[in-house]
Amino acid sequence: MREVAVIGVGMTKFGEHWEKSFRELGIEAGYRALLDAGIESKDVDALFVGNMSGGIFLEQEHISSMVSEAVGMTEHNVPALRVEAADASGGVAFQQAVLAIASGVYETVVVGGAEKMSDLTSIGVTDAMASMGDRSWEGLFGATIPSLYALVARRHMAEFGTTKEQLAHVAVKNHYNGARNPYAQFRREIKLETALRASPVAEPLGMFDCAPISDGAAAVVLTTFDNAKKLSEKPVVKVVGLGLATDTLALARRKEITTFKATVAAARRAYEMASIKPSDVDVAEVHDSYSIGEILAIEDLGFFKKGEGGPATEEGRTALGGEIPVNPSGGLKARGHPLGATGVAQIAELVWQLRGEAGDRQVKDARIGLAQNVGGVGGTAAVTILEVI
Amino acid sequence: MREVAVIGVGMTKFGEHWEKSFRELGIEAGYRALLDAGIESKDVDALFVGNMSGGIFLEQEHISSMVSEAVGMTEHNVPALRVEAADASGGVAFQQAVLAIASGVYETVVVGGAEKMSDLTSIGVTDAMASMGDRSWEGLFGATIPSLYALVARRHMAEFGTTKEQLAHVAVKNHYNGARNPYAQFRREIKLETALRASPVAEPLGMFDCAPISDGAAAVVLTTFDNAKKLSEKPVVKVVGLGLATDTLALARRKEITTFKATVAAARRAYEMASIKPSDVDVAEVHDSYSIGEILAIEDLGFFKKGEGGPATEEGRTALGGEIPVNPSGGLKARGHPLGATGVAQIAELVWQLRGEAGDRQVKDARIGLAQNVGGVGGTAAVTILEVI
Repeated sequence: MREVAVIGVGMTKFGEHWEKSFRELGIEAGYRALLDAGIESKDVDALFVGNMSGGIFLEQEHISSMVSEAVGMTEHNVPALRVEAADASGGVAFQQAVLAIASGVYETVVVGGAEKMSDLTSIGVTDAMASMGDRSWEGLFGATIPSLYALVARRHMAEFGTTKEQLAHVAVKNHYNGARNPYAQFRREIKLETALRASPVAEPLGMFDCAPISDGAAAVVLTTFDNAKKLSEKPVVKVVGLGLATDTLALARRKEITTFKATVAAARRAYEMASIKPSDVDVAEVHDSYSIGEILAIEDLGFFKKGEGGPATEEGRTALGGEIPVNPSGGLKARGHPLGATGVAQIAELVWQLRGEAGDRQVKDARIGLAQNVGGVGGTAAVTILEVI
Repeated sequence: MREVAVIGVGMTKFGEHWEKSFRELGIEAGYRALLDAGIESKDVDALFVGNMSGGIFLEQEHISSMVSEAVGMTEHNVPALRVEAADASGGVAFQQAVLAIASGVYETVVVGGAEKMSDLTSIGVTDAMASMGDRSWEGLFGATIPSLYALVARRHMAEFGTTKEQLAHVAVKNHYNGARNPYAQFRREIKLETALRASPVAEPLGMFDCAPISDGAAAVVLTTFDNAKKLSEKPVVKVVGLGLATDTLALARRKEITTFKATVAAARRAYEMASIKPSDVDVAEVHDSYSIGEILAIEDLGFFKKGEGGPATEEGRTALGGEIPVNPSGGLKARGHPLGATGVAQIAELVWQLRGEAGDRQVKDARIGLAQNVGGVGGTAAVTILEVI
């Protein structure tokens, strides 16, 4: 495989962008990434867009053409397409762009991830999000995504003794980190008691166990490693591992639900490609759309043994300064979770961390970063490993 | 680029499948393609799904995980994703799968295209289809997709003298061909007068100028050319040219509308990669979602000069037995147009033609085939060239 590197990243602040359209969010993130890479839109050979549901949120499909036009790329008829795998759309789009460069057909590619969720009511959003699960066999019987994650949490508690306090510690840590991230939706720390006292969403998950409804976009510029060494004045961040995997759409059809097999398989493939082991990872961005998701992730990725994710979080082993800092960006909980943007924002955060540009939330001496992006309730997982050269 | 070949194709009959779910259509097409390739689902390294709007038609996103499970691929956590570019989703998904194999990361990949449209009312479908155009700047003001194509037709008539009779000849030819295709939605020939007398949809386009509302799925199996030579007992069909291009989403923002610049750019890239010229093509499947679309296509692809597409069709130069047979399958008009399935069905038809398996609609001595798949009103175009070895 031809080697590929990230030479530019950019994102909008995540949050409620009442005054900006999807188009404008895409333009803002895209131009920031191009500026960071030091190239112009005419230098781009293709555009990959990660987006979960323009169809339901905006009644707009075909957003690849829309975004291509918005950033001036239709002037030279740049190839563009959308990649979708629920809220793993961004991470999966990134991986497809890497493969497209590796194939030799393209040299320089932009990957954008975006979602505009706040134009629907919160009931509308809950229903839209149910489209990432199995509508026919779970959604139609009333199972929302938070309720399915609540089942996972209950089972994890029953099998391993994971506590509500441990889940709350995920939120406390991620809010602490988010307070240090200028792009985060929530820039304030919270107390453990606040998380524990919050209104229930789907027991045992409360308000602070759930990522918010967000608008936002993120973009990265990719090129060949050889180009990157020539072009970039910043440290070059190479893509060293890719893994993608699926599992059943419905939770009901899995033999076990305290492990996401898609994460395990995707991680195995990514570690193999990168020739590294979990303990080589210096910093990780994982999919904490629900607090239990981060517990599962740090176990399924091999950072901790199954069942030890809760205690490890409580003990601060995943905090900034801990042995494996997880979600220094604030994660989906505090940075926000515009579905299709999340996987691309994870890559942006890793690049800032690996270049040493992450300011108050910098992980010291980070050389290898890992991103894990999950679609639905584990129906898809994408794991990507980056290394600064 | 590592060379890639098609070793299996399959599809469902296109039409109104009241008794079958999206899932079942996907399974049927997928297994037929695997059977044709002589491999099993466990031999598949990745799944690419082309689908325009599971979100709007079925309130179901994340269908990559759903289809992966339905065909038994989640058993070994096969990587899967959905590619979307309006009704070019199938053709674009095919191209991404080729790049993924070319990258060296995957050996054998299945591409499925599917859409289930008939679960909505016809007004619902018209609205869903408007999501492939510019919702904010055209759709919200009442412009439907047929009305935009009608503007293209009127302008083509005004500039080049194209007639309603010439447009009707597209439908007559494609119904003639569809009558010879067991997978076609409409298997009956029509008279020129029938097409001309049909109810208007958006003047000058009548009922027979428009592709129908369809359910259906198609699938193809791709592998490296080296594998294909070893595995396949049938003639090996190699992918020799790929081109993808975008244009503005809204028709209103183009300088001219009698040419689809995206088709021209995509064709130029595909011809260059294949090192051939338009006159080398023996058989073409083009995007006749509206009759005027086929006229534009045969001009923009370089088969005929601009303005000569209408007369050429009237003279039978694109008929079976003509100098360049176009849409021997019956095209979108007669085979049907389940949006995300169309681009994959075009590839399936070309493979049957190039292997000499197309029965009553066989194009004699076809060695090079071209597929052109358009998204929306020309916002995306994918051109793929296949050659039998």
